[in-house]
Amino acid sequence: MTSDRDPIQILIDEFRRLPGIGSKSAQRLVFYLLKEADEASNQLAEAILGLKAGLQLCSQCNNVTDKNPCRLCQDPNRDPKTICVVEEPFNVLSIEKSGGYRGRYHVLHGVISPINGVGPEDLKLKNLLERLADETVEEIIVATNPTAEGEATALYLSRLIKPLGLKVSRIASGIPVGSDIEYADSVTLSTALAGRRSL
Amino acid sequence: MTSDRDPIQILIDEFRRLPGIGSKSAQRLVFYLLKEADEASNQLAEAILGLKAGLQLCSQCNNVTDKNPCRLCQDPNRDPKTICVVEEPFNVLSIEKSGGYRGRYHVLHGVISPINGVGPEDLKLKNLLERLADETVEEIIVATNPTAEGEATALYLSRLIKPLGLKVSRIASGIPVGSDIEYADSVTLSTALAGRRSL
Repeated sequence: MTSDRDPIQILIDEFRRLPGIGSKSAQRLVFYLLKEADEASNQLAEAILGLKAGLQLCSQCNNVTDKNPCRLCQDPNRDPKTICVVEEPFNVLSIEKSGGYRGRYHVLHGVISPINGVGPEDLKLKNLLERLADETVEEIIVATNPTAEGEATALYLSRLIKPLGLKVSRIASGIPVGSDIEYADSVTLSTALAGRRSL
Repeated sequence: MTSDRDPIQILIDEFRRLPGIGSKSAQRLVFYLLKEADEASNQLAEAILGLKAGLQLCSQCNNVTDKNPCRLCQDPNRDPKTICVVEEPFNVLSIEKSGGYRGRYHVLHGVISPINGVGPEDLKLKNLLERLADETVEEIIVATNPTAEGEATALYLSRLIKPLGLKVSRIASGIPVGSDIEYADSVTLSTALAGRRSL
């Protein structure tokens, strides 16, 4: 049946199931690719095929990578004294883009969420504890999302790691830079007030 | 150099060059594909590769198609007495989706645009005239965009085709259905007034 379908419609349907792409965007993408040179659209297809071909989780930080250990774990210029703990691999990318962090990472691949049946045993904590046994680590920055699940995970990690004599910190929550106090929701505003720092 | 680059970053860059996809959307798409089963992302890649593999222009209507003549030209249920002339292949898709037309199509692959150096000789008019020589055609609906170039093309077609004794019509311009007269621009509003029809 597939062979009889229109190749244009097949690709429109494929694009449409991706997040954030509706039927008009999908149509636009397909006709853009149609006008393009063959090599350019083949490059896109090869990049998709190549995405998972060589990818694995880094044995140290659990980030998705094509090399083990990953580029970030191998980079000698990164500070081995701090580990930033995040929920998902794409959080690493966001923090890297911000340029505000030069230490190591650890990806949990989830957060504690009793409602979804996710407990601490489902998170990638085993190799985190192994890394902490190493004497060079001094501080753990918990950068899970400021949601109920993210906070619960942060609390759990803090109780787990503090007894080992390490510093555990949490990224700041508050009013986003450039936004207006007037439009901040009340939980964010009270968090920002509670988290005030002296000038 | 390519082989040393991160496959995730390669695909992010590939998605980013597509229209309407910024760096955050590209990142989101890549991590969505990463979480998906391998077969699903391979299907997407194959649909991209398959897009141009068997595609050609229909010898009758110039629409992009994997069969010649295309499905629309072959469909015996479509009225051969009207031909709707459009600028680009994706216009056919939009009109088909509207469900308001059951005749044939003809794709010009462009519009007359002296500024861009596009004259009537650059449009796919030759096989349109051949089709008009066929006695079954009675009406040509010019569905080029209501822009300066689209209107010029419509005028050109009308002068070319009317002497052949065929009816030439133009799709209506006016206030979009469901929108508000208050927000219509003045050119659209005066076009809508000029194009009023009796009730």
